[in-house]
Amino acid sequence: MKIGLDTMGGDFAPKNEVLGAIEALSELREGSSITLFGDESLIKAICAENNVDSSRFEIVHTTEIIGMHDHPAKAFAQKTDSSMVAGFKALSSGMIDGFASPGNTGAMMAGVMYTVGTIEGILRPCISCFYPLVEGDWGLLLDVGLNADCKPENLYQYAMLGSLYVKGALNIENPRVALLNIGEEKSKGNLLMKAAHAMMSESKHFNFVGNIEGNEIFTGKKADVVVCDGFTGNVVLKMAESFYHLAVTQGMEIDFFSKLNYESYGGTPVLGINAPVIIGHGSSSPKAIKNMILITEKMIDAKLVEKVKDIIKQTALPENTDK
Amino acid sequence: MKIGLDTMGGDFAPKNEVLGAIEALSELREGSSITLFGDESLIKAICAENNVDSSRFEIVHTTEIIGMHDHPAKAFAQKTDSSMVAGFKALSSGMIDGFASPGNTGAMMAGVMYTVGTIEGILRPCISCFYPLVEGDWGLLLDVGLNADCKPENLYQYAMLGSLYVKGALNIENPRVALLNIGEEKSKGNLLMKAAHAMMSESKHFNFVGNIEGNEIFTGKKADVVVCDGFTGNVVLKMAESFYHLAVTQGMEIDFFSKLNYESYGGTPVLGINAPVIIGHGSSSPKAIKNMILITEKMIDAKLVEKVKDIIKQTALPENTDK
Repeated sequence: MKIGLDTMGGDFAPKNEVLGAIEALSELREGSSITLFGDESLIKAICAENNVDSSRFEIVHTTEIIGMHDHPAKAFAQKTDSSMVAGFKALSSGMIDGFASPGNTGAMMAGVMYTVGTIEGILRPCISCFYPLVEGDWGLLLDVGLNADCKPENLYQYAMLGSLYVKGALNIENPRVALLNIGEEKSKGNLLMKAAHAMMSESKHFNFVGNIEGNEIFTGKKADVVVCDGFTGNVVLKMAESFYHLAVTQGMEIDFFSKLNYESYGGTPVLGINAPVIIGHGSSSPKAIKNMILITEKMIDAKLVEKVKDIIKQTALPENTDK
Repeated sequence: MKIGLDTMGGDFAPKNEVLGAIEALSELREGSSITLFGDESLIKAICAENNVDSSRFEIVHTTEIIGMHDHPAKAFAQKTDSSMVAGFKALSSGMIDGFASPGNTGAMMAGVMYTVGTIEGILRPCISCFYPLVEGDWGLLLDVGLNADCKPENLYQYAMLGSLYVKGALNIENPRVALLNIGEEKSKGNLLMKAAHAMMSESKHFNFVGNIEGNEIFTGKKADVVVCDGFTGNVVLKMAESFYHLAVTQGMEIDFFSKLNYESYGGTPVLGINAPVIIGHGSSSPKAIKNMILITEKMIDAKLVEKVKDIIKQTALPENTDK
C-alpha cells in the first residue's frame, strides 16, 4: 500500500514531516511505502542531512503551500500546485491508498469534499481519536470536533463508522459502542442524547451497550467506542491532552498519561468518506508524524469504505429526522 | 451563622455526616455553628463514641429518611418528618442560614423549589463546582449538571451568578468569566455557544473574557469562572474526577490531582436560589462532609442572594429569547 504525506502544511514543515517519515520507514509493514508531497529539493536535503537515501520515498514535487491562515475552500481551489491539493488528487486517482497531513484542518476538509467525497448514505463525516485505556489497549472517541451541532441520526452513523473502524484497525470482533451521557439510564441527558439513545437501542448495525459517563471513558470497562457530538468530543479530547501536560508539569512520567499526548496517536482519522484521510496537529513533532503515518497504514488496512458500503447495503440506516 | 446539615441522607448516614461535622468544628470561624438534622439518639451515640460533647451541635430530631431510591418530589411532599424536609423548613424560616446534604439530589432540588425558590429574575438555577488551578487557587465551573439543555440567556445568567459567587467566596475583585467552547474566535462552537458569546460580549453584569477551550480550564491563565451547559459541565466534572482516580491507581500522590477528588471541594452549591444550599455526593466521606460544611460557610458569607437582587435591580438582564 502507498501512504501519502503532505510535507509542507505543518508549523515546522517540511523538517518534522520528513524526519517523521524517516522514522516510520523501519516500522511500516512489508509492502507499505510512503509518498511525500512537497518541495523535492528540500525533502532531499533533509534526507541527505540524516544520511537517508531519498529514493526510499516516492516524491511528488509541488511548488505551493496552503498555510494555517489561508481561507480553507479558497486556498484549496486556487493553490492547485500545493502539496495538499496534489495529495488529494493522487488519493482520488488511486495513485496512493491513504493521505495524511498536519496542515490547515479546514482546507483538509475542503479537500475531502472537493475530491473523494462522503460515502453514499452517510449524512456527515466526522473525525475520531484513539485514546488510551487504563486496562488494555485503546478506545475510539468520535466525533471530536467536526460537527458541533449533531442530530440523533448523525450519532447513529458515527456509532456504525466507529464500530467498523475499531473492528478493522484494532481487531476487536464485536466492539462495544456507548453513548457519552450524564447518567446511565436511557431517560438521562439532553434532548439529543435521549433521542440518540432511543435510535441506537434499536441498532442492527453495531453492538450498543448504552450510556457511559465522563468518568468511565478512560477505564475501558464498558466501551471500545464512545460516541458524542463534536462539541463535547472536542472538549473531552482537549481536556485529556491538558492532563498529559499537567502530568508532565508535575514531574510524572507515567505510560497512561503519556499516551494522552497527541504525539502518541498522531492524528484524527476522518470517517465516513470514500478514502482514508488523517488530519494531524499543525505543530506535529517527528514522533507525531511517524504515528500519523502508522495510523494511516492501519486505516487503509481496515478497508472501512468497502465495509461501510456493504453494511449499508445489507441493512438500511435509520431515516433522516429532517424528512 | 448557623449551618444546617442533613445527617440521614447519605450512603453512610449518619456516621460519616456526624464524623465530618465533628471534624469541621475546629475549622469553623468564630460565630459559626452547626445544626444537625436527623435521629438524635444516633447522632448522640456517634458523638459519645468519639468523645465529643454533643451539645457542641444544635440537634433537630427527625424520624424519617429520604433515601436515594425515593421519588424526589413525592418523597419531599410525603416524608414531612425527614431530616431533609426539616432542614429546608429551618432554612426557609431563617432558623439556619444555609443547608447542606449528601442525600438524594432530585429530592434536594424538589426541596429548593418547594421552599426557598428561585431568585426573581433568574430563569433556572444551576449547580456549580470549584476545581483546582495549576497556578493558584480555585476556579468555578457551572452548570455541572442541572440543565442539560440550555439557552443563551441561561448561560448569561450562570455567568453573572458565578461571577458574584466567586467574588464573594474567593475575594476575587473582578472575576474573569469565560465560555467553554471549541475555539477561541467568537464564530466557533455550536449554535448555543455562538449565541451565548454574542449575548455575553455585551454584558454589563460581569467581566467576559471570551471563549476558552478544554485544555485551558485547569490552567487558570484565562478565567476564574467557566460557563457551559449542564451536559458539558457534567462530562467535564466527572472526567476530572476520573483523573484523580487514575492518578491514585498509577501511584501518584500529587496535590493538584488530589484536589480533583470530590472530597476536597465537598459539594456543589446551587446558585440562583433564595438561600445557600449545597448538594454533596451520596457516598461522602467524613472529609467530604467537613469540606461541604466549610463551603456552606463560605457561601453564606458570600451573601449571594442579596448581591444578585442588587445587580438585577441596577441593570436589567437580557431578554428571554423565548418571548
